[in-house]
Formats: sequence, C-alpha cells, structure tokens
Amino acid sequence: MAVIECVPNVSEGRRQDIIDQLADSLRAVPGMRVLDVQSDATHNRSVFTLAGDAAAMTAGIPKLFEGAIAAIDLTAHHGEHPRLGAVDVTPFIPIADATMADCVALAKSIAEDVSSRFSLPIYLYEEAASTPERKNLEDIRRGEFEGLAAKMAKPGWAPDYGPAAPHPTAGASVIGARMPLIAYNINLNTDRLDVAKKIASAIRMSSGGLRYVKAMGIPLEDRGIVQVSINLTNYEKTPIFRVFDLVKREAQRYGVSVLESEIVGLVPGAALMQSIEYYLQLEGFSADQVLENKLRPHPGE
Amino acid sequence: MAVIECVPNVSEGRRQDIIDQLADSLRAVPGMRVLDVQSDATHNRSVFTLAGDAAAMTAGIPKLFEGAIAAIDLTAHHGEHPRLGAVDVTPFIPIADATMADCVALAKSIAEDVSSRFSLPIYLYEEAASTPERKNLEDIRRGEFEGLAAKMAKPGWAPDYGPAAPHPTAGASVIGARMPLIAYNINLNTDRLDVAKKIASAIRMSSGGLRYVKAMGIPLEDRGIVQVSINLTNYEKTPIFRVFDLVKREAQRYGVSVLESEIVGLVPGAALMQSIEYYLQLEGFSADQVLENKLRPHPGE
Repeated sequence: MAVIECVPNVSEGRRQDIIDQLADSLRAVPGMRVLDVQSDATHNRSVFTLAGDAAAMTAGIPKLFEGAIAAIDLTAHHGEHPRLGAVDVTPFIPIADATMADCVALAKSIAEDVSSRFSLPIYLYEEAASTPERKNLEDIRRGEFEGLAAKMAKPGWAPDYGPAAPHPTAGASVIGARMPLIAYNINLNTDRLDVAKKIASAIRMSSGGLRYVKAMGIPLEDRGIVQVSINLTNYEKTPIFRVFDLVKREAQRYGVSVLESEIVGLVPGAALMQSIEYYLQLEGFSADQVLENKLRPHPGE
Repeated sequence: MAVIECVPNVSEGRRQDIIDQLADSLRAVPGMRVLDVQSDATHNRSVFTLAGDAAAMTAGIPKLFEGAIAAIDLTAHHGEHPRLGAVDVTPFIPIADATMADCVALAKSIAEDVSSRFSLPIYLYEEAASTPERKNLEDIRRGEFEGLAAKMAKPGWAPDYGPAAPHPTAGASVIGARMPLIAYNINLNTDRLDVAKKIASAIRMSSGGLRYVKAMGIPLEDRGIVQVSINLTNYEKTPIFRVFDLVKREAQRYGVSVLESEIVGLVPGAALMQSIEYYLQLEGFSADQVLENKLRPHPGE
C-alpha cells in the first residue's frame, strides 16, 4: 500500500483547542494517520506529521485548510517563525510504494482544489515548483504575510493557483513535494571544534561536498566533545553510509575518530536498508523479506 | 503489539483441498495472519508460516490440529520427509514485543490444550524442552510414526503431555519455541571450493567457530564461484554482521574477496537493525524511529 507522508505547518501554536480540533478532523479521515503534532507557542506554529495514501490526503488536507482558515486570522497573528498563511506550508513526501512524481501530482491536485474552494492563492515549491525561483520555501515566504500583497503585485509572483491577491485573513499557502529530510549527527572523540567545522565544510554541498548534505560543526559542551550535525535532504541520492564513511575518513586525517552517530527523529526504512545492503554487500534483497513488513494491513485482506 | 511467528509443519502435501481447508480455518481466526503456505508433494508435507499475538495462536493452532487430525491418517501416509504425526512440529518464534519466555509459555499452554482435546501425545522441544535429550527435533522424531509405539514404551520417552501411547492415526506432535532461523549466504570471488569449505569450517560452531552458526562450502557451478552457505540459529547472540566480517577476514587469508551476500527468505527487522547500528556506530536508536513502524495498526486505535 502506498504511504505518503505529509507535514503541514499551521500558523497556530497557542490555542490548544484549535490545534486539537484540527488534529481530530484529520483523525476522522479514513486511512489518515496522525503520527505526531508538535506545537510551539513562541513560534505560534504547529507541525502535523501525517501518513496515508493519496486518497486519505485528498480527503483530509482540504479539511485541515477549512478548519485553519476558519480559526486563524493572520492580521492578528504574532510569532517568531516566518509565515505567509494560515496553513503556511504543506509538503508531500514519498515513503513507500509511492514516487516523487506521485507526490508532485498530489500536491498539484490538492493545490487546485483548496485554491478554488477557499479562494486562496497557492505557490508550488520544491519538486512541484513551476520555476527555479519557487523551489526554495524561503524565497517564496520572504516578506511574510505582511508583505504579501505587495509581493504578489510584482512581476513573476502570480500564484500557481487561485486569486492574484492574498486571502484577507489566511494569506497564501505553499504546497509541494520533497524527499524526507533525515537529521543525522556524528560525534567525534575530541573537543576540537575546528576539526568538526572542517569536516562539516568538507562534506556539505555548499562548500564542495556531497550534493544533498547540509552540515555544521558544533560543540557538545556538557560532554566535552564535538559533533558534525547533518541534514540529509535526499537519502536516495546521498545515502547515510556514504556520509558516515566520508566523515570517518576525514576525521582520520586529524587523528580523530568517530565516537558514535545518531539519527534524530523519524527515518524511512529504505534509508536504513540502503546502508545494510552497502555494508553487507547484499544482493537481491527486498523489503518484502523483512518479516514485520509482511504484517502490515493490505487493502481488501 | 506482540508478534509471534508460528511455523507448523503438517503431514499433507498432496491433497490441495485439505491444505486449503486448513489455511482457511487459520485465516478465519481474528488476529491470525497466514503469511505463506508451502506444500511439497514428494515430502507429502506443508509448511504454514503464521504470525499473530498469543491470543491468535491460542485460538488458531488447536483448530489446525483439529482439521489435520480429522483429515490425515499416518498409517496411510507416505513421503520423503521424516514425520511423527499429523501436525508434525509446531515452533513458536518471538518476532516483536515478545520474549522467548513468552513463546515457551505459549508452547506449553497450547501443548496442554491440544493433548487433552485430541488425546494426542506431545513432546516439547528446543527452548521449551523438558530435558536435554528432547532439545533436538531429530532425536525426538527418530523412528518416525512407524516406530513411535515402541519408542514411547522405552524409559525416558513418556511424552510431556497427553497419553503414553500414540494416537492411532495422528501419532504424536512436537511443539516448542525457538529463535527465528536466518538463511544467509556469502559468495566468494573464486571457484576454489576448498576455500569456501575452510571458511565454513572456521566460522561454524561444530568445528570451533561461532556458537549459533551452521555453515558449509558449496560450489555455484553455473556461476563458476563458491558460496559459504550459512544458517544463523540465534541472530541476537550471533549477529549477521559478525559472521559477515569474519568471513571477509578469513577470505583475505587466501587472497579471496567477498563478491556479495544474500539473505534467503524472511528475516526479522531486528536482525537488520543490529547490523545498521554496528556499521554506523549508531547510539540511542529505536525501531520506533523507523517511519513505517509508526504506521502499523495499534490495538484500540
């Protein structure tokens, strides 16, 4: 069964009753799983982690928009996190038996649906972006809700769907598709911050490293060691094992060794399987051979 | 949710209608999943691969005994595979959220139940065995159905449950608990069979190697290479990565390298996670972080 993850970011992190209502409306959708809800009062923002198939998303995401647009007024919204709209950003992420193309198609069809239902301007981003200027969320969101009317009037900033001016209280929304992001840290057996920074610089794309790696060197002061803190933005193309082996090798150069690594938060099973296959030189292995995978519910069974 | 695997071997591999009936009776049990049914006409034997929790097993396994005892007459049964009874052997295997102790307790309670319901002698084996002589299936089964009455009359061969003489048509049954068996092969970049045999000898317990490894060297003649063919009988205590690394190192001694490895059939996810944690030096990782694991149905959700 196809599993698509969706991580809508909603501009409400303080009124718990509203957040609960939105989560409950999602839970009521057949096939929709609400895996996590994280709210931050300072940011005044909540992040929902959802999973389901395309049908569940098509039914559930418009309900989330409906509830959020009714409850949230951006003209009275304050918080530290930048935002453009009531449902600020909605990425669809392929997890299992779903491709990036499936997620792009889903993003577009849901964008079309909610834009017409709620007269809401929608920008497509990341893999669903219609132009290179709209690939990065930060570029679309620059100016925030307060600057949105002026921005939308500029050439090149007509939305992908919906009206050419902001929704009066819900602003605009950014919908798209991207790979799952993996937060991965590698701790070094040293307190030398310069070493962690040099290794981070060697492995990240921005300074000549691997294409889908963001990295920085930071101290773990309470432990007296340093960490290479990494975001992997496309594990299919830049796999975990390659990053790990590269950090290990770069560390050797400084006479430093890897103490341990850690995965923060959720990781798709496929990202782990890649590493198993690499280290054990596994051939012809399929995720269907993992006993637990046989235990998932199948449609119609 | 606890997942226990059960792999009953039934002495019927030719009459498809009987095999289907038995599988259907298992499928009708709430919480019971029939993952696989393999029948072999030459062996005249079928192997059911089941998964579920203790309640599903307690409800379903006696149904399997009931159907098999009604349909199978060992006095008229012929096949190449050794057998003692209609339901010949029934191992319970801990997969997730279940311990070996849980499976031993389940084996005993189901043994007691079916022995009294069907007046059937039951021997406990492997981790559930009551004496060291009953640990190995082969020792219990030696003499087969035809020699069973004589064997049961000997000192030391009273059954663990049920009457002291064979069931007239269903013989006796062997029930127990064991770890999942992993079939794992490592192919070498050479046609030298002596090297595969020496490596197999170095890694297997019987000749001084790792405790839970059975191994032999065999030629893959169509490919012109050799293979170390391995059974891992307890992956928790002898993990895959340790076997792989040991074979790699032994191969170096002969100037030979590992071409690839392969896992045959099903493998518990935990056996793969061990290897990930080892090679990536992962600390503090939990299977709950694998996104797909969050998608399994929870009781009451």
